[in-house]
Amino acid sequence: MPRLVLATHNKKKLLEIERIVGPLLPSLEVLTLDDFEAYDEPVESELTFAGNALLKARAAVARTGLPALADDSGLAVDALNGMPGVLSARWAGKPKSDERNNALLLEQIEDVPDEFRAAAFVSAVAFVLPSGEEQVVEGRVPGVILRAGRGEGGFGYDPLFLPDGVDQTMAELTAEEKDELSHRGRALRAVAPLVAAVL
Amino acid sequence: MPRLVLATHNKKKLLEIERIVGPLLPSLEVLTLDDFEAYDEPVESELTFAGNALLKARAAVARTGLPALADDSGLAVDALNGMPGVLSARWAGKPKSDERNNALLLEQIEDVPDEFRAAAFVSAVAFVLPSGEEQVVEGRVPGVILRAGRGEGGFGYDPLFLPDGVDQTMAELTAEEKDELSHRGRALRAVAPLVAAVL
Repeated sequence: MPRLVLATHNKKKLLEIERIVGPLLPSLEVLTLDDFEAYDEPVESELTFAGNALLKARAAVARTGLPALADDSGLAVDALNGMPGVLSARWAGKPKSDERNNALLLEQIEDVPDEFRAAAFVSAVAFVLPSGEEQVVEGRVPGVILRAGRGEGGFGYDPLFLPDGVDQTMAELTAEEKDELSHRGRALRAVAPLVAAVL
Repeated sequence: MPRLVLATHNKKKLLEIERIVGPLLPSLEVLTLDDFEAYDEPVESELTFAGNALLKARAAVARTGLPALADDSGLAVDALNGMPGVLSARWAGKPKSDERNNALLLEQIEDVPDEFRAAAFVSAVAFVLPSGEEQVVEGRVPGVILRAGRGEGGFGYDPLFLPDGVDQTMAELTAEEKDELSHRGRALRAVAPLVAAVL
């Protein structure tokens, strides 16, 4: 059975990826980094989601010898020129904290009128093979940033993000609804056929 | 003697503007908002320096009946897509704190390699007349963001900013050196002839 490694240590992100990828690629054995000896994850020094996703997937291939799938994702807020972007998880500094990140974002755009609070969740998924072959696809969900969080599901900025055309925040959706709609779901569904074609 | 009002309550900014504008416009009586009854300053809700500068100058004209000069300025960091930008003074939230703003910026771009730490200080100066005539000019200084602050002068992000071609941070320069080089100095020297021509 061909094997694929998911190159993330973020537990919640891993759960989402496994949940989406499993049914899409039933003939693969999907491993995680926990199945291998620990290694230092690379510093996410790139300025784009695609750059960081590639960096993480390449590192996983180098350490495991297996094909790897990695996601880099975040929230691009119009009024912040697309930031927090690649810095979404560490927006308020370290240690990483969803609560501090959400609070900081709300304070920063407090004076931004409702009509300028558009944003998008973006996910770049990189697929890298030991041969060196690389693919990156991007998924994107447009929406707006609310003035207070709603919902207990998801993680990151999910409670603040109301996708266009939906009445619930990303944190108020069920897991299935979120996967159907989400940036990560979109990117993973786009990359799955590319993976299936070569493994 | 024609009169002009400087539309800012920021003491340090006011000092800089008075220092630069005084010698440029010796035939004007330059007033500050302290010379008038207090009023609520407008919320800086615009997404551009020019938009906020105009908003502040218009409010001052409305309340004083005099021609007004207003500055909106900040630091545009490449790795943050031009942010903190118009949010520079309130980047870490309220209450405004240079110390917290500087610390947050350093943490956010901690993983950004030296070659991608370019930034620019930008100042938009708006000149608004009671007749409704409006002008905006912009001054800009390119440089890089250091990994730790240097110097005790200036304010805001000055200690972190090394202008291109200079060995001292903006906070290590004398007041005269800063005015000669700074974004605000550049914008004010550009607007002065426009003011002199109509007052």
